[in-house]
Amino acid sequence: MKHFSLDLTNEGVALTAYLLDSSAEMPNANVRPAILIFPGGAYRVCSDREAEPIALAFLAEGYHAFVLRYSLNENAAFPRPLNDAEEAIERIREHSEEWGIDPDRVAACGFSAGGHLAAALGAMGRLRPNALILGYPCILESMGGILPAPIPDVSKAVDGRTPPTFLFHTYSDTLVPVGNSLAFASALERAKVPFEMHVFQNGVHGLSLAKASTSGGSKAMADADAAKWFGLGAAWLNNVFGDFPADREGSWDVEVEQFGVDVPLGVLWKNAECKRLVLERLPVLQESPQLDDAMGVPLRMVVEFGGGLLTNEQLDALDQALRTVPVKANKERRSEQS
Amino acid sequence: MKHFSLDLTNEGVALTAYLLDSSAEMPNANVRPAILIFPGGAYRVCSDREAEPIALAFLAEGYHAFVLRYSLNENAAFPRPLNDAEEAIERIREHSEEWGIDPDRVAACGFSAGGHLAAALGAMGRLRPNALILGYPCILESMGGILPAPIPDVSKAVDGRTPPTFLFHTYSDTLVPVGNSLAFASALERAKVPFEMHVFQNGVHGLSLAKASTSGGSKAMADADAAKWFGLGAAWLNNVFGDFPADREGSWDVEVEQFGVDVPLGVLWKNAECKRLVLERLPVLQESPQLDDAMGVPLRMVVEFGGGLLTNEQLDALDQALRTVPVKANKERRSEQS
Amino acid sequence: MKHFSLDLTNEGVALTAYLLDSSAEMPNANVRPAILIFPGGAYRVCSDREAEPIALAFLAEGYHAFVLRYSLNENAAFPRPLNDAEEAIERIREHSEEWGIDPDRVAACGFSAGGHLAAALGAMGRLRPNALILGYPCILESMGGILPAPIPDVSKAVDGRTPPTFLFHTYSDTLVPVGNSLAFASALERAKVPFEMHVFQNGVHGLSLAKASTSGGSKAMADADAAKWFGLGAAWLNNVFGDFPADREGSWDVEVEQFGVDVPLGVLWKNAECKRLVLERLPVLQESPQLDDAMGVPLRMVVEFGGGLLTNEQLDALDQALRTVPVKANKERRSEQS
Amino acid sequence: MKHFSLDLTNEGVALTAYLLDSSAEMPNANVRPAILIFPGGAYRVCSDREAEPIALAFLAEGYHAFVLRYSLNENAAFPRPLNDAEEAIERIREHSEEWGIDPDRVAACGFSAGGHLAAALGAMGRLRPNALILGYPCILESMGGILPAPIPDVSKAVDGRTPPTFLFHTYSDTLVPVGNSLAFASALERAKVPFEMHVFQNGVHGLSLAKASTSGGSKAMADADAAKWFGLGAAWLNNVFGDFPADREGSWDVEVEQFGVDVPLGVLWKNAECKRLVLERLPVLQESPQLDDAMGVPLRMVVEFGGGLLTNEQLDALDQALRTVPVKANKERRSEQS
Repeated sequence: MKHFSLDLTNEGVALTAYLLDSSAEMPNANVRPAILIFPGGAYRVCSDREAEPIALAFLAEGYHAFVLRYSLNENAAFPRPLNDAEEAIERIREHSEEWGIDPDRVAACGFSAGGHLAAALGAMGRLRPNALILGYPCILESMGGILPAPIPDVSKAVDGRTPPTFLFHTYSDTLVPVGNSLAFASALERAKVPFEMHVFQNGVHGLSLAKASTSGGSKAMADADAAKWFGLGAAWLNNVFGDFPADREGSWDVEVEQFGVDVPLGVLWKNAECKRLVLERLPVLQESPQLDDAMGVPLRMVVEFGGGLLTNEQLDALDQALRTVPVKANKERRSEQS
Repeated sequence: MKHFSLDLTNEGVALTAYLLDSSAEMPNANVRPAILIFPGGAYRVCSDREAEPIALAFLAEGYHAFVLRYSLNENAAFPRPLNDAEEAIERIREHSEEWGIDPDRVAACGFSAGGHLAAALGAMGRLRPNALILGYPCILESMGGILPAPIPDVSKAVDGRTPPTFLFHTYSDTLVPVGNSLAFASALERAKVPFEMHVFQNGVHGLSLAKASTSGGSKAMADADAAKWFGLGAAWLNNVFGDFPADREGSWDVEVEQFGVDVPLGVLWKNAECKRLVLERLPVLQESPQLDDAMGVPLRMVVEFGGGLLTNEQLDALDQALRTVPVKANKERRSEQS
Repeated sequence: MKHFSLDLTNEGVALTAYLLDSSAEMPNANVRPAILIFPGGAYRVCSDREAEPIALAFLAEGYHAFVLRYSLNENAAFPRPLNDAEEAIERIREHSEEWGIDPDRVAACGFSAGGHLAAALGAMGRLRPNALILGYPCILESMGGILPAPIPDVSKAVDGRTPPTFLFHTYSDTLVPVGNSLAFASALERAKVPFEMHVFQNGVHGLSLAKASTSGGSKAMADADAAKWFGLGAAWLNNVFGDFPADREGSWDVEVEQFGVDVPLGVLWKNAECKRLVLERLPVLQESPQLDDAMGVPLRMVVEFGGGLLTNEQLDALDQALRTVPVKANKERRSEQS
Repeated sequence: MKHFSLDLTNEGVALTAYLLDSSAEMPNANVRPAILIFPGGAYRVCSDREAEPIALAFLAEGYHAFVLRYSLNENAAFPRPLNDAEEAIERIREHSEEWGIDPDRVAACGFSAGGHLAAALGAMGRLRPNALILGYPCILESMGGILPAPIPDVSKAVDGRTPPTFLFHTYSDTLVPVGNSLAFASALERAKVPFEMHVFQNGVHGLSLAKASTSGGSKAMADADAAKWFGLGAAWLNNVFGDFPADREGSWDVEVEQFGVDVPLGVLWKNAECKRLVLERLPVLQESPQLDDAMGVPLRMVVEFGGGLLTNEQLDALDQALRTVPVKANKERRSEQS
């Protein structure tokens, strides 16, 4: 993982990145979707409870994650926080190749006041995210009464460019009433923007993941029912963005630096010369009913599983022979195939 | 998050740490349980698919996580890898205060050959982890046939000091047969060591989380049924270690740097002088039926929700008055309470 | 189970009952909550897909279930179907003692047009159910356009007597737009009626349980995401009604016809004379560290587990002695306790 | 639903049937898999807690269900209960056509002593079920010590004809130790019979569904973790037997008694004459981009949705015309197609 922070233009505004490692073993995850998180806190603070824990929940789903600490308090007047959000999206898309991000699969996720900011980015932003996840968001102008500066009613700004949206809220939220989410959902319906919404009956404002680990110790902040929102949201985002590709038959289509007996049989089989060398020494493989199963297994294990199909000397000799076969890079192989 | 690597004694052996941030908002998570992960790879490699993705899955549950890349190939002969594992546990416990770890809640989690190493640590280690999670582990001596060096049958080493264990395996695993896990489970039963075991009928060897994101692109490596193992394992570990405390009524028992009208009412209520100052200006609060609900809300919002209970000038004056009240640190308060 | 149908007043209207058996082994379920189901079908038919399968899903949760086949087609003009629904509720409450139903925990559940009828019962009914579950309901007057008769906009009728409500819908429903559920939810919020609502993005109209078994064979009618509605709804209803009591320590507080050695030890322990007789022959039990565990186990098994603590002759003699101890009925015992 | 009991040959032995209704709307469920349930109770009673509630859990999954009350106490000596079980399977298969059952998808499910009987049927039966589900089963000869008669060790009887098996148990079961399930699993592995096994660490003997509704009121009998067994078991059985077919595009391939304007458009489209009649009056449909979506919708609604594409008189005339088109039974249609 790479973990670092970038200062953005406005004073005190920072973008924190959590970038998962790529690996030759996971070629289907070299490019990943990303999520940009706006913690809540009434435009007065950015709550830690809605920052790193949310990032980790999405990292565990295979997303790169970013947390934006945006303009607050005397700097909270619109459009300054929105400009921060736009700049964050811009940076993420600019660095998408370097960071292994698909620039067309960048979601924004915000809570409470951060939900207002995410919704504003989605409905009014110069740049737009590709999906929105809004947790107990402030939507209506009336919420400005409890914030340091007036806010626009973002439900009124919803347009056809607003991305698909996932909303969750609790009916029992006395601080930001559920009517905020209902208003946004109605606006999405009118604009024919696809959405998903989960309103749980019970639960106070500010639940974050609603788990004990994010509760801060408060009983009211851990709720097994409302905690289902994350699984529902992750499934929804997966549907909107598409899951990681996992359609390859077998698991041996991997790039190796050098052939040899510690390489999976399937990899050797894809190279005509390697296959010939192996079958020459191990003609028994040709008719084995378990040949398919063995494809993901290093040749050395195949030999040992087979009850010592070769002596150590024979195995070493085969290893030497295979090592002399030139390896073609995947790129090269693919261009040949297409 | 803090993310760094430490070299251990043996050549090429490194311990990679993922340490979650602590926060004044989450005082119940200043000390966390930890998990030490041993990726699989036949004692020939440490598979990336069973390293960082597993760490992230546990980080999302609130655990600090560590990945050990242990002695391999010509260095794989026992007890060298076991010594690496013991050193890793030792380091984690030594730094537990610095890193915010409960030294009595350190689990070891391994897959395939890494499962053998985790099981060895649990059953034979000089130092023992406090719980074991074993994914399709090599247990039996016979598995040595496909490894670079002989291995001890760790089921034979199970003793009363072996910690509670979670096992999962698939019946269809042709590389490491399910009999390995059955043997370990039987040994645990004989030694009266509590365990949980989930054998799924379908699924190839090496599933990791069995999700598309960890599949490497292979169809066989994503399996919705077998993927249930992680949720089952996390619930089990939570039962064994106990969840984060979340038993406080309300959410206002937080340390603040200074009192004022932007501080939750409940925090002010805990300080006799602050409570007096507030009630002097807002006697209406005394009888309010919604007083309890308001405890988590900053006083400024309470005033505004109440329909402007104070003028801006009155609010500023109250703010000034509250700011003069000296704050006692939580430690101080707690020592007074006890 | 008892399974029968009752004809109601209006022609062609029938109430089908599914009543779970009560059992001395499950004294906590002698009185159960009930659910009254209104299948959908545009007030032209009552769809089988939304009748028995829904009843069974709730029966499996421990509810008694009823399906109402209400007035249709030329008889669909309001308030005739509403009168059918009111009569059904009345019958259920009248027979509540006979059928083992808690008359204050009767939910109404309807789909599409049946959702309209359930909502009407909840918002306008002479008699009201104690909870509502509405699946992709027709709510708005405009839906009358596709029905055999005009319908009232039931969102306008929502009042303070409307019970807590669970709604689910899909955004992609082109036949009954999601705006129907949004309108009902907004009305509930205004009337301060607690509700829960789940809008899934994908899924056609008429999903029923959204499982293959209720799909009728149509691919579009089985949807793993939307199928989550039932678990969410059952959990919600459980919260609203309260779960079956399960707070007794141990499991031996059961009524028996006669004492003897095949009765759980715990049952014998509750009777002073039985306890005396047992301890006389088995003084070893007094100090046994496993006495607690043994309480749910018949005495005969305790003796055998203990390695033959008594000979067969001694066991028979003890059995004879215990059989002579008079059994007090639970009612009698309870009146003594209180 | 049809609900009835049949007396079998041996005295006091009865087979209780729960048969789900078939429906023209669910042609993919005219033939269903079935489950035969053996409640536990130490071969002394058949526990109600492991009878009807288990039946209902499977009925909710779309299975027909049967409960066998088998030979007990002085009649419990083998092979008499096994003969009861064999007779039950025989009856179910004999009546499979009448009852709408697939005779090759009949599972046996037993608990504790009933788990012994189910396992015996699977491993030793003259007739065998097609899958086994065993809950905390007695397997070993040693369990005979707490039963009214000796029992055979059914793990020793496992052969290649034993069907795929699902086992669950709790480590904490002090009455029937988990070694019973481990022994059966090992025997299945040796015989190469596919299996799935879930051992939960916590939970007493006799959990049934481990839900409050089946707890009998005892706290120990409701356990959220162990309660996961049923979902795991139902998913497993679904994999073994295959789910209900749900692969039809659209939902209009249903048999109707008569054509007309209240019939889904898709049904009319499948009949060349109906399609001609409709297009003659509604040529606009031909080019409609929403034609596909409309296929599941009755023609009357299509006309109304379209904004009144026909007058009432025109609609009635079309209805009359369609009613004269002869309906071919599905069987007839299918034989034409093949």
